[in-house]
Parts: sequence; structure tokens; C-alpha cells
Amino acid sequence: MADNKVNEFLANARKAVSFPVEELTNFLDDGAKNTDHLIHPSIIKARRRWLENLIDSKKEPVFINHDRIFLNREQLYVRALQKSKRLIQLKKQYDLSPTDWNTLIIATGEALPIILNDFMFRPVIEGQMSEEQIKKWLPLVENYAILGCYVQTELGHGSNVRKLETTATYIRETDEFEIHSPTLTSTKWWPGSLARTRYTLNLYPSNVVVNHTNVDWPIFIHSNHGAVFARLIIDNKDYGVHPFIVQFRGKDHKPLPGIEIGDIGPKYGMNVIDNGFLRFTKVRIPRTNMPMKFSKVSNTGVYTRPPHAKMAYGVLVLGRADIIQNAAIILARVLTIAIRYSIIRRQGNDYKDPSQELQVLDYQSQQYKLFRGLAMAYVFLFNARFMRKLIEENLSKVNQGDVSLMAEVHINSAGWKALCTDLVTASIEDARRSCGGHGYSSLSGIPEILSFYSQYPTVEGENTIMYLQTGNYLLKTFQSIKKGKIINGRLNYIKDYKKILLQKSSSKSVEQLLDPDFQLESFRHRFLYLIFNLDSDLKTTSQVHPDGFEGAKSGHIIDTLNVTRAYCYLTILSNAHEGLKSLMKQHPRLYPTLRNLVDLFFVDTVLIQSGDFLMAGYYDSNHIKLLQRTQKQLLRKIRPDAIGLVDAWEFSDNCLNSALGRSDGDVYETMYNWVKEEPSNQKQETGVYVGYNEVLKNVLSGDYLKEIGLSRNDGVEKAKL
Amino acid sequence: MADNKVNEFLANARKAVSFPVEELTNFLDDGAKNTDHLIHPSIIKARRRWLENLIDSKKEPVFINHDRIFLNREQLYVRALQKSKRLIQLKKQYDLSPTDWNTLIIATGEALPIILNDFMFRPVIEGQMSEEQIKKWLPLVENYAILGCYVQTELGHGSNVRKLETTATYIRETDEFEIHSPTLTSTKWWPGSLARTRYTLNLYPSNVVVNHTNVDWPIFIHSNHGAVFARLIIDNKDYGVHPFIVQFRGKDHKPLPGIEIGDIGPKYGMNVIDNGFLRFTKVRIPRTNMPMKFSKVSNTGVYTRPPHAKMAYGVLVLGRADIIQNAAIILARVLTIAIRYSIIRRQGNDYKDPSQELQVLDYQSQQYKLFRGLAMAYVFLFNARFMRKLIEENLSKVNQGDVSLMAEVHINSAGWKALCTDLVTASIEDARRSCGGHGYSSLSGIPEILSFYSQYPTVEGENTIMYLQTGNYLLKTFQSIKKGKIINGRLNYIKDYKKILLQKSSSKSVEQLLDPDFQLESFRHRFLYLIFNLDSDLKTTSQVHPDGFEGAKSGHIIDTLNVTRAYCYLTILSNAHEGLKSLMKQHPRLYPTLRNLVDLFFVDTVLIQSGDFLMAGYYDSNHIKLLQRTQKQLLRKIRPDAIGLVDAWEFSDNCLNSALGRSDGDVYETMYNWVKEEPSNQKQETGVYVGYNEVLKNVLSGDYLKEIGLSRNDGVEKAKL
Repeated sequence: MADNKVNEFLANARKAVSFPVEELTNFLDDGAKNTDHLIHPSIIKARRRWLENLIDSKKEPVFINHDRIFLNREQLYVRALQKSKRLIQLKKQYDLSPTDWNTLIIATGEALPIILNDFMFRPVIEGQMSEEQIKKWLPLVENYAILGCYVQTELGHGSNVRKLETTATYIRETDEFEIHSPTLTSTKWWPGSLARTRYTLNLYPSNVVVNHTNVDWPIFIHSNHGAVFARLIIDNKDYGVHPFIVQFRGKDHKPLPGIEIGDIGPKYGMNVIDNGFLRFTKVRIPRTNMPMKFSKVSNTGVYTRPPHAKMAYGVLVLGRADIIQNAAIILARVLTIAIRYSIIRRQGNDYKDPSQELQVLDYQSQQYKLFRGLAMAYVFLFNARFMRKLIEENLSKVNQGDVSLMAEVHINSAGWKALCTDLVTASIEDARRSCGGHGYSSLSGIPEILSFYSQYPTVEGENTIMYLQTGNYLLKTFQSIKKGKIINGRLNYIKDYKKILLQKSSSKSVEQLLDPDFQLESFRHRFLYLIFNLDSDLKTTSQVHPDGFEGAKSGHIIDTLNVTRAYCYLTILSNAHEGLKSLMKQHPRLYPTLRNLVDLFFVDTVLIQSGDFLMAGYYDSNHIKLLQRTQKQLLRKIRPDAIGLVDAWEFSDNCLNSALGRSDGDVYETMYNWVKEEPSNQKQETGVYVGYNEVLKNVLSGDYLKEIGLSRNDGVEKAKL
Repeated sequence: MADNKVNEFLANARKAVSFPVEELTNFLDDGAKNTDHLIHPSIIKARRRWLENLIDSKKEPVFINHDRIFLNREQLYVRALQKSKRLIQLKKQYDLSPTDWNTLIIATGEALPIILNDFMFRPVIEGQMSEEQIKKWLPLVENYAILGCYVQTELGHGSNVRKLETTATYIRETDEFEIHSPTLTSTKWWPGSLARTRYTLNLYPSNVVVNHTNVDWPIFIHSNHGAVFARLIIDNKDYGVHPFIVQFRGKDHKPLPGIEIGDIGPKYGMNVIDNGFLRFTKVRIPRTNMPMKFSKVSNTGVYTRPPHAKMAYGVLVLGRADIIQNAAIILARVLTIAIRYSIIRRQGNDYKDPSQELQVLDYQSQQYKLFRGLAMAYVFLFNARFMRKLIEENLSKVNQGDVSLMAEVHINSAGWKALCTDLVTASIEDARRSCGGHGYSSLSGIPEILSFYSQYPTVEGENTIMYLQTGNYLLKTFQSIKKGKIINGRLNYIKDYKKILLQKSSSKSVEQLLDPDFQLESFRHRFLYLIFNLDSDLKTTSQVHPDGFEGAKSGHIIDTLNVTRAYCYLTILSNAHEGLKSLMKQHPRLYPTLRNLVDLFFVDTVLIQSGDFLMAGYYDSNHIKLLQRTQKQLLRKIRPDAIGLVDAWEFSDNCLNSALGRSDGDVYETMYNWVKEEPSNQKQETGVYVGYNEVLKNVLSGDYLKEIGLSRNDGVEKAKL
């Protein structure tokens, strides 16, 4: 993009950025020479650019995105398969590492079948099968000789896995399992991708990821195998839910006998993916199709319980961690679009010069809509990096038989997943609205991102359930500590809750309020205030509730959710400040700008929930007023850097797929050119006017009245065209 | 629907409702015998049912909705035209009143072309044309001999109408105007329906509505005329933006010379509607195509200014009032779906009986998600009825030359439009998530409603701009009153602001807190606190800001938005309590339940913004704690009545178009049956597997590797299927 072709407002904005954008890109790449990447998983930054060049849509038209909005579901699906196939070919051709593979996938800008899912089918093969089973199945999966999917949820059963109804009954005579759907509600429903496909990031630490070079793709209709979760029944005894590898389709993709399979229809988003349904009528599979690393069934029908029931749990956590990572990337994508457009778009009179219109980004309200999201994007990035470290730490402990970090990994991944997806979904919608009418158009690219992302508050653990799991754990921990139990680790400070609850802010200035230690002190105080109150209320209520403690708890769900949110804000903010500390050392020139964003996240959180903080008593109303002023100052400070803070992510125009968010700012020409490809416009070029012959001619001519025995009022006929 | 076929949980829930549902339906119909309707615009209730029967999809299959999700845009459009034509035929055949006509349109459950828009093209004809012009044009419009649209926004210009670029230059030689698009950004963009189509309610008071019997439909591609807003230029002098009637299409719907016209492509929602673009290259129209009731251009090119510039403004207000009305209906539709499903769906163990799963609606968190919306639906209903009265009052005053209510109508319609659409959009999303995974499926019906409704925070006045207009007016009023000006009308209490700001709640009990007068006192106090502070801050800042007051204001946009919101909450709550008062007299049996909803709206508002209330000082933290307990009590009280509160609206299953929200609760069977119609499932029945021949066969066979000169790893070939 030659500088002289760039929209002048955008070009001027870029000149005003206060920090070196290239260095921020470097930081986002997790170090130019750092092989242990996060966001742009590249060996070196130049390598990322080389990789992105491989799928340059000018050379490889299959990767063109902008006409996608005009395709119907079938066309979308076939296009995505073609794209996926080409990606696999590139992977094989250049023998790409998992790292490079992820870079490529992210750069396509779309959730793709075949490729995206590293986590669901293959982990069942690798993680739950015996060595002997792996030898048989893994090569098939690695080479796409079979395509597998993860088949868990049923029409009537989602989050509560223990209530799944599909059965796998052991048939001693033939040493087989019979897979069966006993009821309508047991019909497998959704498998494919609602819960499964995502902009996958490599979350495994480098020593683990090496085993995941090749990736199978578990989407449903095209998959010919699946890991089906079903109740294991032996001699009429129910051993609970286990996975079973079942083949669905045979020659020429035809469903096998006893298999009823299909697409579940369109969805809010992700219509490129074919989520499916599946019913089994007494389908037999060999006994050895049950993965037997942990649970086993012998050829005499004897069931052996797994020694470590919790081990399979890790996959779920990784799924959530993945979502926590994506939070930053998705926000950065949307904000790249909205911030660029808000610099180009002008509206309303400039009070200084009424002949001019202001850049929309100069309005405080627009800054408020967008910079809060921008702050989250960077805060969530720091948080994601912490999450990765925590997972690595846990994995290395678990490998040594130490499960002491498991609970922390669980409650953080559950709570953060819920809070991040809640906040990101709302922030995408804010960004959409910040683009005015054009934000409603598919040409903006935002509706697709919004409807795609809106699955995340539900999948991989519905958010309310996630908050409650974390909240209940926190409550138990609080109660244990109160009773004198000593807890090591990051929740250790709870023991000082009495002392902490007496704290009050002594800050008199903005500088003091924004001091990181004081920021965290206020969040810690608020969290402890809420959990202390919940605990007290529960104690009181339990005594009078006919159902005791459980009854009392069911009447305090709202409070439990609030406790978890307060905990998540505290820990996320804490992780952001940790990240800033090392940033200060490694990239001092980036520090001031990123510090402003973290400060804004802090200030915004307090202001939106100021009632909590005032009730807790750490802040008084003078502090809140000071924070209100601080918020406005921060918005002003961030304004000139905003364009650099989004440019640094280096999303290609094709990846963004937005007429509003182009890096050269050529918004209107692009919109105009894109709509020319709209199918009914193309037809019009050939003299076909959709709807005219079908209906409109009949109405305009008045024939619609003749059909019901009426005629037009006087005077109209002669005026008729 | 025979009672014995209804889902047992739903049937039991219906038995537990504490009030007479039929009476509530009656109230929603605005009185069984009341011709002056609001929600179900029927002469008598039985008539509404008779009308809905006219479009029963069993007899008239064109009205079937459930397969709509499988149609592509072209099919959707043609289907909608067919539906519209049939509706027009029914209207003509039965000579339906505007009242009946609206009932029919609402009952179709879809935003339809041709029919829905009473407000945009025709009002230009009727409202801005001279008597002579009306005689020519109205019969054409009334009889659908021409189809018109409202063409205002441009690619580069939305809310700021004064900056539109399209020109209409007077050509003296031929007594014509030349319509021209001088730049790319002047391309007309969006006209059609983003801002225009809605679930139309009859908002005109009965004495006015009589003039609107026949309705033209202004959608774009199929429209052959339009009211084009352009800058009037005479002898190089710019007279500002005026409407001009321009013909776009001629014989066989072909665009006329100089007209470039097309569809602007898919959108987040409303894809049934063809929003369009339009460029003019020196298109000539007769001078008399300019509506000349107010502004006039003579045949010698002399321009006459309108005597009453503000009169055309009324249409905008009506558009907003319409949106304020719809807020209640849309929420009621979504909540009918989500509440019915939450009664049928079971999840998680019942702590009293672990073998059972709880009804999802029994969780406090689910009640919180849904009953807040339910409260809003009824509060907004009361508010809409107040709005209607206010508009009638204003119209009758205006007819007597009294414009004293105009400002109040404007600021209320602007602010309420913004707040209602913000809250409703969020509430629809809450309802979507409350349905778990199935809420993401189009089969739930909710994605369509959500993406459709999400236009409203932007259209008919973008919400931020609306809030600011209202806020600036309130600020000016406050400043005038402070200076001693006497304001009559509903803002009169501002004069007591000093006394009011000293108030503190003396409530000690729930009963006192919920006393309507105290509820309103707290909201009034909060509003005055915020506006008092804004005013003080502006005074201080103006003195130091280099750009004085205007500069200071631009730095306090966030506060101005908050002032407006506080004002809107106050007035909406006040209108709800007014409504409750008359409800108590007319429908005492409904009062307790609807009172609970209004109370919940009040409590919820305080709790979500408790920081404001604590800062204002009317409440202290003990009040807030009491309100937190009250909220939970209200949720429990509403639980048994929830099903009655949605059933009473009597949305037909076809109108709801949701597998989850059926009145008989047959959720799973319906989902299963509907997906069988999915196109790729239908193809599979004939042995065609979408994607298999195109790509998957190539991948599964390993041929994709051969294409790039590689072959499969050892061991895979023999395992290949």
C-alpha cells in the first residue's frame, strides 16, 4: 500500500502515533525471534509475513473472502472445504510446523472445516486410547484418511453430560457394543462445531504441541467417524458416559445402516460449518473401538475403572484457555475495523469550524465505545499470556504427579472464559454500533464476527454455569480459610480478609488512584467484601431455609455470580499489571501507551460497578468523581495512539474482510465495488429484475385485483405507467 | 391445541398462574370492545382472532414461516412479495380498516416489503404536496400503481442530513430539475428499509389515521418512484435539502436512463428487504415533481421559503414513537419463546431429588435473565400508551396553533427511543443465551429477531445522537430554571431542585421502598443530582477550556448521556405507575402481578446503577441491601405467573416461528421435523452428499497429496476405507 494512496485522515492519524508501531507488532508476535509464540505464531516475524504471503488471495484466489457474503450455505461450505484442502496441501508441501500451521489458519480470517479443530476428535484418539489403539487410528487421522468428529451433546442434553441418554450396550456373544438412541431427546445434536470450531491458537506448550502436527477435522456431515459419548451398559448395569469410535459413513459417503445423519439447519452465525444430528438404531461396533487407556472393558465384559478419573479433564480446560486467548484477537480485529472507519468517517459539525464535519473518533462518546474494547483487548492479551504460563506450570506439575494447581487452572479458566466472552460479545456489538448504519451491513464484516462470536458465552461451558462453578469453589475456599485451613498459592491473601476489609483508599490524586498496587488493593477489597457478605447471608438463610444450605445457595445465585465476576476482574487486572512489569523492561517505549489501556480497564470497571465499590467502602464518592475525570483524560490520551494500537496487529485486508476497515481507508469505493457482485445486481445487468415477473408486475398492473374480482378505483387506470 | 397434547410441565405451569389470563389478553387488546386499540388493533377481541384466522397458514400456505430459514435472499424476497400481495388482496377483498390491516401485518410475524411502511413515501405525498399535486399522486400510491420509497441517506452521509450532497438544479430553459450525484459519497445508500420497515403499529390517533387507509410500500429495488432528498440549487444558489419525486424504473421495471440502481447486499438482519443504492447522472424531472405545500419554486425559478419549517418534523417523531411501541411487542415475542422453553427444558440436578433435573426457569439466574425483560415489556407497554396520549395531545394543540408540547414530544421520543432500543436489544440477547445452545439455532427463532431488532439502536436517529439531543435540551431547561425562568408542564419540578437534592430515603421496609411515590422520588433525586453536577462541572470547565462552553460540553458527553438516561428511567417509571393506577380501577385482578413487574423494573434499575444512587445520596448501603433482597423476592413471586404473562399476548405459533416457543411445548419433535426440510438433508435423501464429490472424496482418498507430488505416509493406504 503506497502511502500516497492512503486516505488522508488515516495517514495523518498514523503520523501522530506516539510509540513505535513496529515494536508493538514485535511484542504481539511475542518477540521477533521468539519461537514460543502466542498471537502470531511465527518463528520470526518475517516468517509470519512469508506465511501470510503463501495464502495471498491475489495468487491463491480460493482464499478470497469478500464475496463470501453473497454465497448461500451450500456454496459457503464447499468453498470452505476447498480452502481447507488447499491449506492442507500447503502444510504438507512446506512441511509446516504446528506453529506455522496456526499462523496460516488465523490469517485466512474464517472458521474453516477440516482444519480448525485440533482438540476434539484427535485428543480422544491420543489421550484416551491405548498404545495399540493409537497405532491403528492415529495414522488414519493424521493423514485425513478418515475425518472424525466429537459427538457429545444431545437434543435434550447439553451441559449436564451425566444425563446423556445414548447407550452403548456390551454384546457378549459377538464381543461388540451396540450403540443406540433410545429416545428422541437422545438424538445427537450440534456436534460439529458450535462448541468446537474456533480461531484456533496453539495453546499447548512447545514440548507438548510437537505431537499435534497433523490436524483432523471433526465436522459432522462430512465426517465419516466420530467419538460418540454414550452410557456404557454391561449386563444391564450402567457404568456412566464413555466415548466410542463409530463409523457413520461408508463407500461414497453413504450413511451406514442404522445411522440417521443430517445437518441441523442454519444458525445465528457459523453457517459455513455443518453442525449435525445423528440417531443410532442398534449400530454394532467392535469392542476395541472403545478407547481403553483409562476405562477398559475386557473381552469377557469385565469393566475396569480408570485409575485417574480427572486426567481427561484437561481437554476441557484447554478449550476454555483457547477461548480466553481468542478474546484479544477477536476484539483487535473488530476494533481495527471500527477505529479505522471512525477516523475516516466524518459527521456532525465541528463547533470550531461549522463548515467541517468532525472525525467520528473525536467524539468522547465514540472514544468511550471503542477504547474500552481496546483496553480489554490488551488486558486480555496479558491475561492470556498468564493463562498459558499457568497451564504450562500445571502440566509440568501433573507430569510429576502433583495436582495442586489443577483447581486453580479450573476455576480461572472457567471464570475468565465466562467474563471474557461476556465482555467481548458486548464490545463487538458496541463496535458495530459505533459504525452507524454501515455497521449493520455485511460489507462492514462486523455482523459476521458478532454472530460468529456470540456462540462463546454458551459453548465450552455455558457462562452462568462457569461463573457458578468458580463461585462455589471460591466460597468453599473462603469458608475453609475462615475455619483456619492454610491455603498456599494465589488465594493465600484471603486469610487476611478481616484486615483487608478495613482498608480504605487514602488516594488523593489521580497518580495515587492509578498506582497499580492501589488498583489491585481496591479490586481485592471489593472481592472480599462480596464473598464475605455472601458467606454471612448464606449462614443466616441456611438456618431458616427448609432445605438448609443447598436451599439457601439456590436463593443466592445472583450473589455468587457477582463474587466470581469480582474475582475475575481482580485476577485479570493483576495479570495485566504483571505483564506491564515485564513490558517495562523489554519494551519501555511501549509501556506508557499500554499502561494507559490497563488503567482505562481499571477505571472503567470501577465506574461501571461503582455501587459495589462504594458499598464495600474502599472508595468514597470523591474517589469516584476523580475516577470519572480520569476516565476522560485517559480517552484523550489514547486517541492519537488508537490507530497504532490496531495497526500493530497487522491483520490483512483479506483477513479482516471489511470495506470499512481497509488499511488504505478506501471505504466508499470498496463498498461500491463489492455490491456490484451481489447476485440480483448481476442479474439486473442481464435484464432480469428479481421479483418483477414473479409478483410486482401483477401488483403494478392492477391484475392482483382482477384475481379477486375487483378492479382499480377510478382515475388510476389512465395514470398507470 | 388439545390440553392433553400439551407438554406436562407447560400445562402445570399454566394451572399455577395467579391471575385471569383472558383478562390480561383483554387489557393488552386495550379493552375487549375498545376500538381505540394499541397492541392488538382490533375492534373487539373476537375480531382479532377472526383476522388472524384469515392468514392461518394451514389455509393460506403462503404465510408459512418455518421454512424461511432455509431460503436464500432471492427466495426470501420473492416469498415476501407473494405474502404481501396476498395481504393486499385480503385487505381489498374485506375492505379492511387501517386497524384490521395492522392486525394482519403484525400477525404475519415478518417484516414485509410493499406493505409495512405507512410512513415514508406517502407522507411526503400527503404531507408536503399541494392539493393539486396530491390529486395526481395519491391515487397512484393508494392503488399500488406506483411503488414509492424514501431516499435520503447517502454513502457518506447519515444522521447529518444537512450535509447531503445530491443536487437538484433548476433548469430554467425547460422548467425542470436536474437530479445529480456529484460524488461517490453522494450515492444514495440504504434507502428501503434499514431505517424504515418495522412491525408497524398504528400510532395516529383515530381522527388522523382515517387518512391512511391504503399503504404504499417503499422498498427500493422494486420501487419505481422515490422521494429523493437533494440540495435545491437555483442560479448557483444552494437552498438546502428538499424532497423531489423521481421515477427510477420504466417499462418492465427497467432502470431509466441516468439511473444506476441496485441492492446493497446482505445485512446483519432484515435480509428479506432489498435496501438499495442509487446514483443519478443528470436526471431531469418536471419542476412540479417537487412537493410544494411548504417550499415552492415558481416557473420562473423563484424560491419561496415555507412558513412553518417545523411542521415536517412530525413524521420523524412518529417513527420514533412507533419504535417505542414495538419495544414491548418484540420483547413479549422473544420472552414467549424463552419462558416457555425454560419451563420445558430441564437441566442440572435437583438438589432435593438428584435423580431429577430442574426446570431451567427454577434457577434464580434464569429468572434474572428473563423476568427483567418481562418487566421491561410491561413497563414499556405502559410507556407506549402514555406516548400515544402525549402525541394525541400535541396534535390537537398543534391543530390549534399551540406548539407548547412539541419540545416535550421531541425530547421524550428521542430519549425513550434510545433507552428502549438499548435495553430491548440487550434483553433479546439475554433471552437468546437463556435458551443455551438451541438459542443459537435459527430453529429457535431468536437469531432472526435479534439481528432484525439490532438495527433500532441506529435507525430513526442514532441512539447516542438521540441521548445528546435530549440531554442538551434538559441542560438548557435546567439552566433557564436556575436563572428563574418559569417552566410549565412536566419538567416543572426542576425548580425545586435544591430542596429535592436534600432528600434522603426514610424507608425502613420493603413496603416503604416500593411505595410508588418513593420510587419516583429516588429517580427524580438521581436525575437532578446528575444534571446539577453536569451543570456545575461545565461551569468550571468552561472557564478554563480554550473553546469555552462548547469545548467544555464536548468533554462531558459521557455525563450528558447519563443525564438523559436518568431522565428517561424517571419518566418511563412514572408512566408505568400512572398506567398501574388506572389498571387498578379497571382490572384489579391483574394489578398485583403487573405491579410486581413494575417494582422489579424499579429495583433492577437502582441495583444496576447503584453507584449513581449512592453518590446522589438518596439511598445508603442499607437501602441497597434491602433492595437486593427485594429483587430476589420479586423474582420468586413472578415465577408462577410468568407463563401467563407471555401467553396473554397470544402470538400464534406461526408468528413466533420458533421450535422452542410453541404453545404446546412440543419442542424436540418440532426441531427434528423442521431440519428434515433443510436443503442438504433433502439432497442426501437422493444420494447426493454436498461437498463429497467437490472436495471430501479427494481428501479422504489421498488424491490431494498426489496433486502436489506427494503420497501418503506408510501404513495408511492399507487402512484406507
